Amino acid sequence: MDAPQTEIPGYDYGTGKVAKLPISMAEWEELKKSALFSEEDAIYLRLSEDVLAEQVDDLLQVWRGVIFDHPHLRAYDEDPMTHEVDSKYAQAVARRFGRWIIDTARAKYDQAWLDYQYEIGLRHHRSKKNKIDKGHTLGHIRARDLLAFCATIVVPMKPFLAKKGHPPEVVSRMYDAWWKSMILQATLWMRPYIREGDF
Amino acid sequence: MDAPQTEIPGYDYGTGKVAKLPISMAEWEELKKSALFSEEDAIYLRLSEDVLAEQVDDLLQVWRGVIFDHPHLRAYDEDPMTHEVDSKYAQAVARRFGRWIIDTARAKYDQAWLDYQYEIGLRHHRSKKNKIDKGHTLGHIRARDLLAFCATIVVPMKPFLAKKGHPPEVVSRMYDAWWKSMILQATLWMRPYIREGDF
Ligand code: HEM
Ligand code: HEM
Repeated sequence: MDAPQTEIPGYDYGTGKVAKLPISMAEWEELKKSALFSEEDAIYLRLSEDVLAEQVDDLLQVWRGVIFDHPHLRAYDEDPMTHEVDSKYAQAVARRFGRWIIDTARAKYDQAWLDYQYEIGLRHHRSKKNKIDKGHTLGHIRARDLLAFCATIVVPMKPFLAKKGHPPEVVSRMYDAWWKSMILQATLWMRPYIREGDF
Repeated sequence: MDAPQTEIPGYDYGTGKVAKLPISMAEWEELKKSALFSEEDAIYLRLSEDVLAEQVDDLLQVWRGVIFDHPHLRAYDEDPMTHEVDSKYAQAVARRFGRWIIDTARAKYDQAWLDYQYEIGLRHHRSKKNKIDKGHTLGHIRARDLLAFCATIVVPMKPFLAKKGHPPEVVSRMYDAWWKSMILQATLWMRPYIREGDF
């Protein structure tokens, strides 16, 4: 299958190990329209890969900083009995999270990508959280935190997007494209959380 | 009750007619943190009221333009039998939608506001869609369109936020505050869509 080959454990993009997203390619095309996502946005996302590739660790640090600052978010990386962070788990997840920045920037929207979005949703949801890395943490990330966190992902990206000296107008376009992609992905990730027939 | 007094039909903000949001004020405080929403964001939202108040109709036109451009979105304003737009319904909704711009800008987060967020969610969901205005339209807005549409609301606002000549840095702060508020509200609106225990 034409999908990323990496050595990251648990990164099952493009493999038969991930569930199939129960929405079609045609429905995905429709969904992009609901978010005003156009081919131009894909172009600005792709432009961002080069800008972000060398800043992956810095971005992860910003986001993990927010998580560790807030008990209700940190809990998702902690053993609920001991309140100790499961750091093996957190590190395994971080590698895939870093890779996600690149995948988002590449904006290659084929069936393998769609299916992996569903898988990412399942891995936040009680269906599959902890399963991939045999974690010992809280077993479910609430829909509310997953959605609200979109802002924590995208807003702090602006200065990083500006780091390579692109004109403000271009940075702004990259930033908006990231917002659109983030909201579209979070929408797909919600699939396991939504009541039958309501998605 | 200390809530907006208007003559807009069906605008039941602050009245006993709306359902109570089943999350507490303390949980709302927590949720704001998941979105990095701070008191500074509230200040920039409030600054935007003056900028947007005289552009409400223009904004509504932009958003409705997107809806009417896309059959899968227009369907939500159409009679599913005849595919005719229920224009009495659409007009009644538009008045409340316009008022929502002002309410979002005011950022007054008390119990009445929280409860009305729940009500707005219910009015998109099959629980209450069509009920308020006795509409004859499709009975449910899909979670996916409601979430994805956040981008259609916020991204086109940027030039409107700039209309009163604020410096780009200030416009940018207003824009980010709108994004955060939008994602937080969409999160609350999802409550009726989410499986028991998953929210
Ligand atoms: C909308 C913003 C979010 C983004 C972009 C995001 C991104 C990701 C990605 C890319 C992965 C790895 C998926 C894979 O296995 O390849 C992941 C997993 C994970 N994320 Fe998130 N995430 C978000 C929200 C959150 C929040 C709010 C939390 C909690 C603080 C969180 C905690 C986790 C955990 C614990 C895992 C591992 C799940 C498991 O496999 O056991 N994420 N996230
Ligand atoms: C996230 C973006 C959205 C925002 C900010 C938004 C905002 C609003 C507001 C403020 C109301 C009036 C609530 C009240 O009664 O006071 C409303 C109702 C409504 N919205 Fe949305 N909306 C969004 C997404 C959508 C989408 C994607 C559609 C479909 C194209 C849609 C169609 C409607 C309809 C048909 C109603 C009337 C529901 C009823 O009471 O029967 N909205 N919306």
